[in-house]
Parts: sequence; structure tokens; C-alpha cells
Amino acid sequence: MKILLTVAYDGTAYCGWQRQKNGDTVQERLETVLSCLLGQGVTLLGSSRTDAGVHAKGLRACFTVDDLLVPLQKLPMIINNALPRDIVVTHARLVSENFHPQYDAISKTYQYSILNAPYPDPFLRNYSWFVPSRLDYESMCRAAEFFVGTHDFSAFCATGSSAKTTTRTIFSSRLSRQDDLITYTVKGGGFLYNMVRIITGTLVYVGLGKIAPQAVAAIILSKDRTLAGKTAPPNGLTLLQVNYDFDERFDERKEICFDLDKL
Amino acid sequence: MKILLTVAYDGTAYCGWQRQKNGDTVQERLETVLSCLLGQGVTLLGSSRTDAGVHAKGLRACFTVDDLLVPLQKLPMIINNALPRDIVVTHARLVSENFHPQYDAISKTYQYSILNAPYPDPFLRNYSWFVPSRLDYESMCRAAEFFVGTHDFSAFCATGSSAKTTTRTIFSSRLSRQDDLITYTVKGGGFLYNMVRIITGTLVYVGLGKIAPQAVAAIILSKDRTLAGKTAPPNGLTLLQVNYDFDERFDERKEICFDLDKL
Repeated sequence: MKILLTVAYDGTAYCGWQRQKNGDTVQERLETVLSCLLGQGVTLLGSSRTDAGVHAKGLRACFTVDDLLVPLQKLPMIINNALPRDIVVTHARLVSENFHPQYDAISKTYQYSILNAPYPDPFLRNYSWFVPSRLDYESMCRAAEFFVGTHDFSAFCATGSSAKTTTRTIFSSRLSRQDDLITYTVKGGGFLYNMVRIITGTLVYVGLGKIAPQAVAAIILSKDRTLAGKTAPPNGLTLLQVNYDFDERFDERKEICFDLDKL
Repeated sequence: MKILLTVAYDGTAYCGWQRQKNGDTVQERLETVLSCLLGQGVTLLGSSRTDAGVHAKGLRACFTVDDLLVPLQKLPMIINNALPRDIVVTHARLVSENFHPQYDAISKTYQYSILNAPYPDPFLRNYSWFVPSRLDYESMCRAAEFFVGTHDFSAFCATGSSAKTTTRTIFSSRLSRQDDLITYTVKGGGFLYNMVRIITGTLVYVGLGKIAPQAVAAIILSKDRTLAGKTAPPNGLTLLQVNYDFDERFDERKEICFDLDKL
């Protein structure tokens, strides 16, 4: 049987999701607990990789097990009991044998938090990018809209990426603000390596007046990484949600896309 | 000259505010930085003590210095630059030589967060009390009202307290809820040792059905600590604000108090 978990974690203490030779990772912690609880070696397949310091509220990861002696709905509680407190499994469900958590994902949603205040906030130090210079929020909102649609996002991809294609579809790209905290929420079919952090860095450059909002369209078309903003730090980023066709119905695909190439 | 600082800190890593022989405290960290920056030994006088693991968004603390060579409004930024990232000074102002941060306080506001969800939240593990059993929020709201007024709060004071009198005045005592997070906010002229945590523990007992909401009035009158609920864990508690007569005008004192003794 194949089981799909939903995992939330505070990434501050970890070298990211993906298991690696040297370094404490979320995948390794979870695999160790599962292997111990199930009495057999467990390998997890994740929906996404997250970098060191990046957080998740809804990463999905699946594993195969011969048999489960406890009720499936009790599994998260049993796993959480053995996990460190900064990793929590919030849901478990059965999936078909041919299910793949990365390739079968319909959409992924990321959130990036920017603290635009005169002083840092000790409670947000691990969960936001502290930008003390005043940001022009309205300009950032205008710039954010240009990312919606199907585009070649080469200008927003870290060099050295091994992706087969750099074309991705963004369903929605929006900012919101509460007091000093600016939150960027982006939902898409998939993302390139560091893409959300480079988009956020570009939006902050727009907020600082270094890039004009309407220049974002040209930067996308240029496919030139050097024209986009810097890569925002990892700690402000959270993988919010990964959606499959068996999850609650949603209609981003039907959203009217702003088609940049037809400008 | 006497300078009053407003201090915010994540108390997770500290043995509380108050300097002690063995243990890392917020006061010691701040005094070390100030002494170094000002070139003279600095002793801080705080508005409140907070226990290990308790947080603050607006603790006030003052110190005396012969002379200040930097503009007062630049002082927080300079201090923050030298402080660990979980302690932040958000404001500095001059006060009169006879000012006392504890005795001159008109009100103090504390907030306590309770996570009432089926699963813990990795992001709130250090900032809330995780209570997985369903809480009756309406009953807790009714119970919270009984604390308003001037009462002998002996039933809500940790044993071994050295307070001269156990009578305190509560200006407001309210719960609010957002999704799974229940927040208790209490403002008063002053609080006994562990008082907010024992009140919160009692409210949770009401939410669990162990204590009837209207029984809270009798528990206050009984002055019997054993009748109140357990002391809530420290990590859910935050000292939100300490107010003086020079701060923004506020009118809690004019609020109509629910006078328990006249029932």
C-alpha cells in the first residue's frame, strides 16, 4: 500500500527537505521515525525540495509499506509523537500504486513574507525577510501581476538548474499587507529552482524603485537572469500547499491568464 | 540622564528577563551590550519580570548614563546591531530622574495563546499552549469576564510569592479566536506571580468542562489556590505592553468594572 502524508515543518534548523550525506534534513528525520515505527526501511518521495531554512505547511510525501497495523487516521498522531517538535504530519491518506507526488501535482502554492518595518521583529526573524527601507507597495502589486500566465522563466531561475524546460505556468501572483508585513502568494503548475525567491527579490527591487513595475514584462521576455532582482533569503519562504486532483476542487486553471506574450 | 527602552524578545532561549547567577537572561544580554556601547557599567531596571520561556513585545526597562554621544532616536538601531536576533529594542525615550518603570506603570497587558487543534503547529510550538481536546469557547468567554474588577487574587497566585498585598485590579479580560488559535488578552494595574498563567489554566479547565464558568466567581472569593486550574505553560505567554502616563491616552480606568464582591 502507498500512503501520502502532508507535512508541516519549521525549516530553521534543517538543511532543507532532501536527504543528503552531511546535514540534518526533514526527509531523513521523517524516514528514521517511519522506519522505526513500521519495522521496515522506509524511503519517502517528496512533492518538492525545499532549501535550507525554507519552511513548509503542506509538503506532500509518499511511501510504500507492506501492511499497516494501526488505523490510517491515527498514523499522523503516532508519527508526531516520535518526531521533533518542529516537524508535524497533519494528514495521511491512501493513494494508488502509480501515484507520483511530484509529477501528479496540479498546483503548488508558495508564500513569501517581507517585514517592512523600521526595526526587526524577534518573532519573525526566522520567517521573514527584514527590509527596513520603505517599499512602494502599490508598485509591487502592479509588478506581481505580470508573472501570471505561461512563460519562459529563464530570467527567474538559478544558474546550474537541471530543469528540462524553463517554461512554467503561474495561475495567480498576489501581494497582501497587514501592518508591517507584506506577503506574496504565488500559485503555479510548478516552479524552477529558486524561482519564487528570485521573483520576490525582483518585487522588492520594484518596491525600492530600482526596477519599474512595467519593466518586469521585459525582464521575463529577456530570459536574462542578470536583469531580475537578487535571490531573496530562504527564511521568508514557505511551501503552503501542493494540490492533486483528489484534493478539494479548485479553479485556478480557469482563471483568466494575463498573457504576456500577446502584449 | 535616564533613558527608557521598549524591548521585544523571543524568550525561548532564555531563563527569563531577570539577571541571575547561572543562566542566560535577557537583562544580562542587554546590559552587556549597553555597557560595551556606552563605555560604562549599565544596570537596567525592568518594568516586569518574565519567567523562562515567556516572551515580550513591550517590556520597558530604564538605565542611567552620564552622557549620550549619539542621537537618542538612533540608539535602538545601534543596540540592535550588537544584540542577538531574538532580542530587539524598538524604542528609546528620556524620562525624569525619579521615574520608576515598575511603580509608575499605569497598566500592563499580557496575551496568552492556546492552540486548540487536532495536531500541533511547528510554527507555534514555542508561542502557544497546544490543547488537542475540544474547548468550549463560549463558556471560556463567559468565565473570562469574572476577572474584571478589583479583587483579592490569592487563588490565582503561585505559592511562595512575596507580594505585600494580593489585591489587584483587572481592567479588561477577553478572549478572541482565529481559526484554531484562541488568544486571551488581559490588562490590569499589576499582576501577582504566575497570575496570568493560572487564570489561563483555569479558563482552559472551563473550556474542558472541569470548572463551570460561573464557578470562577466563587473561586476568586475563596482565595484558595487549589480550586483554580493548573498553571499554564510559560511559552504561550507574552508581555504585550506596559503603559505610563506619558504614553498614548487610554481609558481602561473609566471602563465599567464588573464588581464581583457586590454580587
